[in-house]
Amino acid sequence: MANKPSIPKGTRDFGPKEMVKRNYIFDTIKEVYSLFGFQQIETPSMETLQTLMGKYGDEGDKLLFKILNSGDYFKGITDEELVGRNTLKLQTRLSEKGLRYDLTVPFARYVVMHRDEIQFPFKRYQIQPVWRADRPQKGRYREFYQCDADVVGSESLLNEVELMQIIDTVFVKFGIRVQIKLNNRKILSGIAEIIGEQDKIVHITTAIDKLEKIGLEKVNEELASAGLSEQAIMQLQPIIQLNGTNEQKLDTISKVLAKSEIGVKGIEESKYILDSLKKTGLKNDIILDLTLARGLNYYTGAIFEVKALDSEIGSITGGGRYDNLTGIFGMPGLSGVGMSFGADRIYDVLNALDLFPKKSVCGATQLMFVNFGEKETDYILPILDKARKAGIRSEIFPDAVKIKKQMNYANAKSIPYVAIVGENEIKEEKITLKDMSSGEQCMLSANDLIDKIV
Amino acid sequence: MANKPSIPKGTRDFGPKEMVKRNYIFDTIKEVYSLFGFQQIETPSMETLQTLMGKYGDEGDKLLFKILNSGDYFKGITDEELVGRNTLKLQTRLSEKGLRYDLTVPFARYVVMHRDEIQFPFKRYQIQPVWRADRPQKGRYREFYQCDADVVGSESLLNEVELMQIIDTVFVKFGIRVQIKLNNRKILSGIAEIIGEQDKIVHITTAIDKLEKIGLEKVNEELASAGLSEQAIMQLQPIIQLNGTNEQKLDTISKVLAKSEIGVKGIEESKYILDSLKKTGLKNDIILDLTLARGLNYYTGAIFEVKALDSEIGSITGGGRYDNLTGIFGMPGLSGVGMSFGADRIYDVLNALDLFPKKSVCGATQLMFVNFGEKETDYILPILDKARKAGIRSEIFPDAVKIKKQMNYANAKSIPYVAIVGENEIKEEKITLKDMSSGEQCMLSANDLIDKIV
Repeated sequence: MANKPSIPKGTRDFGPKEMVKRNYIFDTIKEVYSLFGFQQIETPSMETLQTLMGKYGDEGDKLLFKILNSGDYFKGITDEELVGRNTLKLQTRLSEKGLRYDLTVPFARYVVMHRDEIQFPFKRYQIQPVWRADRPQKGRYREFYQCDADVVGSESLLNEVELMQIIDTVFVKFGIRVQIKLNNRKILSGIAEIIGEQDKIVHITTAIDKLEKIGLEKVNEELASAGLSEQAIMQLQPIIQLNGTNEQKLDTISKVLAKSEIGVKGIEESKYILDSLKKTGLKNDIILDLTLARGLNYYTGAIFEVKALDSEIGSITGGGRYDNLTGIFGMPGLSGVGMSFGADRIYDVLNALDLFPKKSVCGATQLMFVNFGEKETDYILPILDKARKAGIRSEIFPDAVKIKKQMNYANAKSIPYVAIVGENEIKEEKITLKDMSSGEQCMLSANDLIDKIV
Repeated sequence: MANKPSIPKGTRDFGPKEMVKRNYIFDTIKEVYSLFGFQQIETPSMETLQTLMGKYGDEGDKLLFKILNSGDYFKGITDEELVGRNTLKLQTRLSEKGLRYDLTVPFARYVVMHRDEIQFPFKRYQIQPVWRADRPQKGRYREFYQCDADVVGSESLLNEVELMQIIDTVFVKFGIRVQIKLNNRKILSGIAEIIGEQDKIVHITTAIDKLEKIGLEKVNEELASAGLSEQAIMQLQPIIQLNGTNEQKLDTISKVLAKSEIGVKGIEESKYILDSLKKTGLKNDIILDLTLARGLNYYTGAIFEVKALDSEIGSITGGGRYDNLTGIFGMPGLSGVGMSFGADRIYDVLNALDLFPKKSVCGATQLMFVNFGEKETDYILPILDKARKAGIRSEIFPDAVKIKKQMNYANAKSIPYVAIVGENEIKEEKITLKDMSSGEQCMLSANDLIDKIV
């Protein structure tokens, strides 16, 4: 019985035109990761629920796609338990595998399982889909690609420096002007330490972030209503009104945080990263931004985020330094630093700013032969073979249908050259070549045709 | 709590070295598909069970990985039904999505959903993983990649010709000597028609296939015990003993099948394909083989299969012509022809025959700088930047640890050049470059170093 087909909500088909664009994004990111010595790995789409559960919080556990066990999936579950309908509890009985939720947990699992083969520091990148049973909405999908790179097993800040260079290189290649925002978890801890309010750090960064919009007075009011003492707010003033160059900012902060050991460490780290980057010819701006507060429960050192300057789309890349990636799998003390490019958002920015390369980057047909019938096809086949051996992506329309239909096909596929072979061309051992953008036609030999297009 | 991590049975991690090899395979296949005008698409990993169920037989339905519904997955199921434990029946109530089982059904679904955007004939390729809950065994995985190409919406035999050329081109690139076996479903139908035994075609092809091993007499005995009449066996003799060139074989068969309309059609088709291929400079042999009987329920015209000549591994590529790809989704009459490269088997053949390119094909580091500390790093950073801008995949060891550890790292990653910068090099504004395979060292300027490696 015929049913009208559909795809699961929150998932997408990618047609040929989207694939060319997506491959351009992934290939560019891959190329740059390789340029910096990162190596690719891939992990299975499915992981055991033991690997996945408890790593993303209760909400994350709910959003994991779980695979129903094969065969008698009720086996071992009593009737009582079934009619008890505790679906949350029963799910790990009905299912022992789930789909990858991100690339970090599978990477941690990979490192622990392959620790004896890996030469540390391990610079790996991974570009694969992940799945989340989130409520689908504009720009949020249930299946999407992540493009992660991490260095684990090295505490050197050179790794942070390289990640900043990777970001810069990738966006220069894309032609997207960006601003890289840099912060350090240790600076934020220092601030909290100095004002004696360890748990208020998110309130503080949020309030400071509003300075331009609502003004100093309102910011201070917000801090007071968040429970900060008058003295604490006083101490924060230089940080709230922080401005100038990165050096000036670091100067100001180091005065405020002089008595916080961890704060001073954060300042030193930031200084080293920014100073080193000056030696590398970074094309985009990197600015110290204390309001940046991503992944506070996870990151322990540098934190960074990238915004496109000519788009309102929000963060398109981010990452940071973390401790103890693999502790949860019984391998403590492995620290690292990592980043992730937001491929879907980058796609939207490239589209909105019309920055996708005009010339087909990967794999569109360059030449199509019109098909007038068997005799002409016999003449064309060896030429077609020659063209392909010369590396020209070419095809012959398979059916000898009306020429209009064949030309429509060439247009729909944006094929730049169409070759026409009729009786006359066969007699003269030539081919008529039509340039589809200019409309110009000329008759030439097979070799000249290949030379022209190659 | 730390648990010792594992991955689901039948799945695999791919480390950096395997990824380089796998990328080489996929990139080569992609490149050739593009060369012949095929366009890439991707479909979601999950499809609705409505799309998937009933397409692969009862056994296939069982082997589908089903995704447990989110939230209250028991909703709408009565207590009675639960304790009834009809797990086969209940699975479509607990689950409405499954993982892709192959690329053909999602492709058919794609074509129907996007019929208005597609310009036919549609030449698409698709390289994505599929999942099957098969019992894992050597060489059989629960997650593996398929590499399919199909042309739909054209009945022209030129499409078959092109698929043969694609096969030839791909295996020439790989350096794998292959034999392409060609058959035609219509010839097999013709044989069955002539001898009046429509349902015995599999018995016949299987028996004929044993000719070399067991001899003519035994083959005839097998046919008799399969229920073929003496007369039928008599008629089959020229076909059982078929030999000679493809032309001679077709000659023989056309005498036997002269009265079968469908048989004659199959012979004409095979003749056209083989004749056309003579005009294209095929490097590998293509032979007509009537014992080839793959996918008989599915294929309606040409059938083909590829064997590696220097390996016992069996079929590494196959495909054929089919009718009515999309009828099951309410779009009848769309015929096509398709093929699939067996990436895992090709990987094994390339490994066994030591045919993977020696030079790293995709993305291994070319140059590593040894790290002696901050002063040296400051000197190196701009040079490193320059090297990367010149396209050299390079890295600096992030930590200033013992040189032995750094050299071990370079060796483990098979990095061909190591650059050493100490006090002396800084003073002379040079770099010492070590060729890791020859052990030779020389001191040169940054520009000369780049020229040497690029």
